[in-house]
Amino acid sequence: VVSRRVKPRRNMPAEARHIAVFAATIAAVLCIARFSTPPLRRAVRSSRLSAARASSIASFRPISSTGLSYSRGPKYQQLKGGASFSSSMEKAASTTMVATPPKVDSIDKAKDLLDSVDTIIFDCDGVIWKGDTLIDGIPETLDFLRQQGKTIYFVTNNARKSRAGFKKKFDDLGLSISSEEILSSAFAAAAYLDKIGFKVTGKSVYVIGDVGIGEELDLLGIQWHGGTADIGKGIELKSGFALPHDENVGAVIVGFDYGINYYKIQYAQLCINENPGCLFIATNLDALTHLTDSQEWAGNGAMVGAIKGCTGKEPTVVGKPSPLLIDYLVQKFGLKKDRILMVGDRLDTDILFGKENGLKSCLTLTGVTTEKKLFDDENKIIPDVYVDSINAFRGA
Amino acid sequence: VVSRRVKPRRNMPAEARHIAVFAATIAAVLCIARFSTPPLRRAVRSSRLSAARASSIASFRPISSTGLSYSRGPKYQQLKGGASFSSSMEKAASTTMVATPPKVDSIDKAKDLLDSVDTIIFDCDGVIWKGDTLIDGIPETLDFLRQQGKTIYFVTNNARKSRAGFKKKFDDLGLSISSEEILSSAFAAAAYLDKIGFKVTGKSVYVIGDVGIGEELDLLGIQWHGGTADIGKGIELKSGFALPHDENVGAVIVGFDYGINYYKIQYAQLCINENPGCLFIATNLDALTHLTDSQEWAGNGAMVGAIKGCTGKEPTVVGKPSPLLIDYLVQKFGLKKDRILMVGDRLDTDILFGKENGLKSCLTLTGVTTEKKLFDDENKIIPDVYVDSINAFRGA
Repeated sequence: VVSRRVKPRRNMPAEARHIAVFAATIAAVLCIARFSTPPLRRAVRSSRLSAARASSIASFRPISSTGLSYSRGPKYQQLKGGASFSSSMEKAASTTMVATPPKVDSIDKAKDLLDSVDTIIFDCDGVIWKGDTLIDGIPETLDFLRQQGKTIYFVTNNARKSRAGFKKKFDDLGLSISSEEILSSAFAAAAYLDKIGFKVTGKSVYVIGDVGIGEELDLLGIQWHGGTADIGKGIELKSGFALPHDENVGAVIVGFDYGINYYKIQYAQLCINENPGCLFIATNLDALTHLTDSQEWAGNGAMVGAIKGCTGKEPTVVGKPSPLLIDYLVQKFGLKKDRILMVGDRLDTDILFGKENGLKSCLTLTGVTTEKKLFDDENKIIPDVYVDSINAFRGA
Repeated sequence: VVSRRVKPRRNMPAEARHIAVFAATIAAVLCIARFSTPPLRRAVRSSRLSAARASSIASFRPISSTGLSYSRGPKYQQLKGGASFSSSMEKAASTTMVATPPKVDSIDKAKDLLDSVDTIIFDCDGVIWKGDTLIDGIPETLDFLRQQGKTIYFVTNNARKSRAGFKKKFDDLGLSISSEEILSSAFAAAAYLDKIGFKVTGKSVYVIGDVGIGEELDLLGIQWHGGTADIGKGIELKSGFALPHDENVGAVIVGFDYGINYYKIQYAQLCINENPGCLFIATNLDALTHLTDSQEWAGNGAMVGAIKGCTGKEPTVVGKPSPLLIDYLVQKFGLKKDRILMVGDRLDTDILFGKENGLKSCLTLTGVTTEKKLFDDENKIIPDVYVDSINAFRGA
């Protein structure tokens, strides 16, 4: 936010600031040296991108080998000859070169994989279903995994529904699961407030979003308002008019909201800027979402971006690829991260989520990612393994 | 935007990227070394802030002494003894120490200042008027400056009105000016499209914002739609529904819009993401705005943030503190930058705007900035001079 960007940051260590400024200067000088005068705009843009990338990487996790050490060296093929899956995975982990991941395409490889994990977390869209259609063979595969003693979770950044709401979708598709197996970002937001002891403060929550967030807060007995009740509300453009806001709001949760309006934006701005210590929580930052099956739709990145843009504050993100959900599971159920398998169809959310959090990761080709894209030179996010569909887990 | 942040950047020089990543790593390590384990969250946040600051500085202007070399050394007082204003200003400019600016509080100092400039650009709110009330003595001061042969402009980031709309406000306050003396950010957006020859492409503009932007585009004969006509529009949440959009839209202009809704956000997203080469123009990035006099209101930073958040694109900003307006004036009227005086009441927009663009700068205390804030150790944005009100220009 321009009008705030030169304000001094009291909490920023001087060393970090000076080094970042120094790096930006060097980067800018290099850009200028590289390009001649006419494409100066391009140089400036590149400099901004590189600094922004550094910022994004630094903000996610201070030191991360997956985030920072992607090699540009030549690929090499894993699993040549008869090496077992487990040993090849260890070998891949011990090198800094980018490896092409092995495909799980036999019952033996599937057994090796399943033996290495206790818990499997599935992304839903493109993995379990596509839009409103169940992918063939999924019920049998989930039954098989349960018979093998695996604990299963379904994770989604879609915050429009509560876990109960998602269970209904599973029911409608003929999949029998329990609400506790669902990890939605609306649940993640409520779980985060639960973890930090928000309820005992007696404060309430202002919600931008659909019904899912409020339903999850209700389960915890946390007071809230906003959400769908504020659709259609407006402001008055007359001298002396001020929008009243509840000074007891201690957190604003922002989830996808197709009923977003200026009233909601201003209400959230007042809470975050004027209520001391008010939290700013985002269910996720997805730029695009699957609202209908005919088009890509603006996602919660838009709603969160609006609140960032008028407060200058960065949100606490609770959905993928934030580590909060995994930390919650590990803490609550005593899971071991390296015995959790994250399965998804998107490299830049699901697989990154797995890698950044120290989980094993498996890409499935039933969604948006093709084998060609996985092996493209420009892709630097490499899952541990990949499958044609998750039916490969039972050798199908 | 998380789902896009790890995509490879084709246009980013490898050197810049590596240095930025390296700096982020060093900054993160320093943060960790500085804090013990419990405040790790704080260290991560600090690292993010420092990298974000580097990004923001680098993106605005690659090498800027005003942006990067603020000294933390002791203040020293200018204008001691009988030194003339001009020589003291040169002296201040020749040092890297932070100087306290001289106050223009006599007819002699006013004459020195006015002799050094041909053109004066005034911010409006807090300088000419406060809310809907004219500040005392302003008509006489503007008359005096015109008698002295000075060219006057009025600049505002408020994009809700066109220049004609602002002229009406001046008229209502009893100030006689011409539309050409007004530089609003709605005008700046249209002037930018004019400068790059947008009209001859035959493409049209999609507008998020109030009536001002469309009125300025009409004056140039550029086709547009959106704006207030899209208030109240919605989408259908049914399978198969896709929002149709005009593939001939070649630019999206985003200005303050209290009628913002999901329809507008999605329409803009489709144009920017799916129409090849579509421009993304922001009238300004102000976090807050003066919609009524009773409260701070979420500004255009919210609308722009929403579009950034669902496209992952950075806008071209045409209002303060972007250099585009000044470049336009310099190019069109052959002005010399160091003979232009920027007068405003905000350090972090008006004065920064002047300094970043090589203009002389004058802070007036009739608006949001107090003398105490100007001289606060934490303020690093120092105008060349300051006045109690612009009536000081005529010794009043």
